Amino acid sequence: MLPVKTKQVFDRQRAGGSLSFESGPAPSNIRCLMPDYPFNSTARELPATVPFVGPETQERARGEVFAARLGANENMFGPSPRAIEAMEQAASEVWMYGDPANHDLREALARHHNVAPENIMVGEGIDGMFGTMALLFMEPGACVATSAGGYPTFNYQMAARGGTIETTPFVDDKEDLGGLLDLAARTKARLIYLANPDNPMGTWWDGTAVAEMIDNVPEGSLLCLDEAYIDFAPPDMAPALDVSSSKIIRFRTFSKAYGMAGARIGYVIGEASLIQAFDKVRNHFGVNRIAQAGALAALKDQEFLGGVVKKVAAARTRIAEIGTAHGFSSLPSATNFVTMDCGRDAAFSTAIVQGLANKGVFIRKPFMAPQDRCIRISAGMPKDLDLFEGALTETLAELN
Amino acid sequence: MLPVKTKQVFDRQRAGGSLSFESGPAPSNIRCLMPDYPFNSTARELPATVPFVGPETQERARGEVFAARLGANENMFGPSPRAIEAMEQAASEVWMYGDPANHDLREALARHHNVAPENIMVGEGIDGMFGTMALLFMEPGACVATSAGGYPTFNYQMAARGGTIETTPFVDDKEDLGGLLDLAARTKARLIYLANPDNPMGTWWDGTAVAEMIDNVPEGSLLCLDEAYIDFAPPDMAPALDVSSSKIIRFRTFSKAYGMAGARIGYVIGEASLIQAFDKVRNHFGVNRIAQAGALAALKDQEFLGGVVKKVAAARTRIAEIGTAHGFSSLPSATNFVTMDCGRDAAFSTAIVQGLANKGVFIRKPFMAPQDRCIRISAGMPKDLDLFEGALTETLAELN
Repeated sequence: MLPVKTKQVFDRQRAGGSLSFESGPAPSNIRCLMPDYPFNSTARELPATVPFVGPETQERARGEVFAARLGANENMFGPSPRAIEAMEQAASEVWMYGDPANHDLREALARHHNVAPENIMVGEGIDGMFGTMALLFMEPGACVATSAGGYPTFNYQMAARGGTIETTPFVDDKEDLGGLLDLAARTKARLIYLANPDNPMGTWWDGTAVAEMIDNVPEGSLLCLDEAYIDFAPPDMAPALDVSSSKIIRFRTFSKAYGMAGARIGYVIGEASLIQAFDKVRNHFGVNRIAQAGALAALKDQEFLGGVVKKVAAARTRIAEIGTAHGFSSLPSATNFVTMDCGRDAAFSTAIVQGLANKGVFIRKPFMAPQDRCIRISAGMPKDLDLFEGALTETLAELN
Repeated sequence: MLPVKTKQVFDRQRAGGSLSFESGPAPSNIRCLMPDYPFNSTARELPATVPFVGPETQERARGEVFAARLGANENMFGPSPRAIEAMEQAASEVWMYGDPANHDLREALARHHNVAPENIMVGEGIDGMFGTMALLFMEPGACVATSAGGYPTFNYQMAARGGTIETTPFVDDKEDLGGLLDLAARTKARLIYLANPDNPMGTWWDGTAVAEMIDNVPEGSLLCLDEAYIDFAPPDMAPALDVSSSKIIRFRTFSKAYGMAGARIGYVIGEASLIQAFDKVRNHFGVNRIAQAGALAALKDQEFLGGVVKKVAAARTRIAEIGTAHGFSSLPSATNFVTMDCGRDAAFSTAIVQGLANKGVFIRKPFMAPQDRCIRISAGMPKDLDLFEGALTETLAELN
C-alpha cells in the first residue's frame, strides 16, 4: 500500500486539475497490463505521476508555443552574459565529463558564503539533491514533515525512496513553523521541509524566526531549508550560516536568481560530515560540464545578479498593480513570483489559469485548499506582463 | 552491516590503488566524528566512496593538467559541429527548464530505432538511469547479478538503494553469459547486468549469443544490457530490438560515440509499461536543456558519427601497434578503448599507469584480478597517442 499520507498528497495534486501542479496520466490501468516486473515494495505501489507537467506538453496540445512563459518561476532576465559566454565556450569541451568533485565551483561557493568547501556539495539542481537526501534518509517507515500544499517535488522524491509524507496546514498563507516542529516531534520525522521564502505562496519568515525554529528542531530530525528564492529576498531573511549545526541543511540553486533553470545545478550548505555523506549515494558524475562552467561565471557576476533582483522587484510591483486593477489582492512576495488571491474558489482560479493559457499566457496556481484560490505569476519582462495584463482582462470578461 | 558481497566489491575497488578504478577517501574515521543523523539503514552502512576519481583530482594533486586524457573513454573526436552549434545557441535559453518529457529527443530516438516513443526514456546519462532503475527495483534483501570487475558504477547505484551485489568471474576476459544466468537463478537476482561490448575489457559477444541469453533470463529477473559502446561495434553485435520483451532493458548514451560525456544524457529502450514506470521515481526535470538540444542535433548527424567511428577504429589499431612494439598484447576491442595485457601482475600495470600519469598521460586500468594485469587506453587523436607512445617507452625504461 502507498502510505496514506503520501497517497493523499498525490490524490490532491491530481485533483488540482490539468493546469495547476498536476500529475501525469492516471496510473489506474497500468498494473493490469504490466508484465510482472520485480519492482521493490515502494515502486510497486507508487503512481506514475509527474510533479509538474511542463509547459511544452501544454504547447504541444495547443499546437502553439506560449507567448508569455510565466508559470515555472523561471527568470527571463538571466543568466549573466558572462555565464552565457562561459557555456558557449564549454560546448566544444563537452566530450569531457565534468569534474565529479565540482572542485572549482565548490571552492568559489565556499568563498562566497564564507564557509569551507567541505560544507558545500554541488548537485543536479535542488530537485536532484532532494533525491540524494531521500537516498540517505528515507526508507519504508521513515517520514518527513512538510506543509500541506508545499513544494510537491520534495514529497515526490521522498516517496520514491519509500518515505511517508506528513503535513500540517499553512496558516495565513504562510508555512507554520511551530506546526512543522510539532508535527515532526509527534511523527518522529527524520526530515522537516521548509521553503523560505515559500513556493507557491511567496510568503516568508524573517531570519530570526527561522533561527528560532532551527534551535527547536527535535532530536532525531534535520531541517531541510529550501532557499531557492533567497537571492530575491532582503539579506536578513536568511538566518546566519552555522555549519557546525547538525540540525539544518540549506538548499540553494542557480535556477532562479542566476537564471539557469535549464542547467540543473544547485548546492547544499551544511555540517561537514553530513556533506561528506552525500558521497555515499550521489551520482558523482551527474553534473553537466557546461552547467559547471556557467555557474562559476554566474557566481562571479554579482553585479548582474543585483540588477536582476531589482528588475524582478519592479516586475512584482507591476504584477500586483495589474491584480489590483482587476480587483485581486496580491500576497507580499520575497521571490520572483507573485501569488494573487482571486477571492473566490479553486474553480474560479483554475478557470483563470485555463483562460490565460488559451490566450498564450502560461501561469500556474497552488494545488491545495485554501491556497488554491490563488494564481501564481512569475516576474517577467515588461512585454510578458503586458501580455498577462491583456489576457487577464479578456479572461475575466469571459468569466463574468 | 554492509551486505558481504557489496563490501567485497568496495574493498577490492579500494585495493585497486589510487590510479585504477579507485574509491575516495577511506571512511573509517567518519562515523566516530559524525553527529547522529537519522540516516536510513543503507546509508548508515555504506562507505563514502567514489566509483571513479576524476582526472581533475589527479591534476590538482600534480599541479598540472594532463597532456593526454586517455583514461575515461571520452571521445575527443566528437561531438558533431552541429551539436556544438545547437548547444551554443541553447546557452542563452538556459533560463528555461528543459522539457521534462524530453519529447522531441524521445520522438527522434524512436524514429532512429524504429520503435515507439513509449519505448524510450531519456535521463541524466546511463549512470543516472542506473540510479532510477535502482529506485524501481532495489531494496534491502534484493540483489543484482553482475561480473566480478564489471562496470562499478552499476554496483554503486544499486548498493545506494540497499541492493546486494552478486558476482561471477570473467572467463577468458569476457563476461560469462551462462555464469550470469546461473548466478541470477541461484540468487533470485532482480537485475542482471551485462555490458556489451564490455568495459573495462572491450570484449564482446555477438548479437546471437546475447539474444540467446535474453531468451534464458530466469523468471523474476530483468537483463540490464548496457550498450554504451555499441555504436563503435559492428551492427550485428546488437541483438534485434524486441520492445515486447519484459526480459530486457537496453541502455544507450550520448557520452561515447556522440562525444557528449559532459552533457549527461542517455536513454533506455524497453517494453512500454517498464518505461512508463520510470515516471514513478525519475527526476522529471533532471535533464539539462542544453544537453537536450545537443543530443537532438548529434543524433541527426549520423554522417559525422560514421566518421568518428572510423577514426576510433584507426586509433584502436595504432594503440595495439604501440602495445606490440613494447611487447604487450592487446585484447580485441569493439569500443573506443583498448585494453592491453601487460603480461605481469597488477603491481606492474599499476606502476605503468602511475608512470604515465607522471608524464602527463592519463589512463586507467581494470581493478579486479585477473583483469587488473591490464591497462586501458582510450582512443585518442594521433597527437594524444604520440604522447602515450613516448610516455610508455619512458615508463617501461624506468621500470625495467
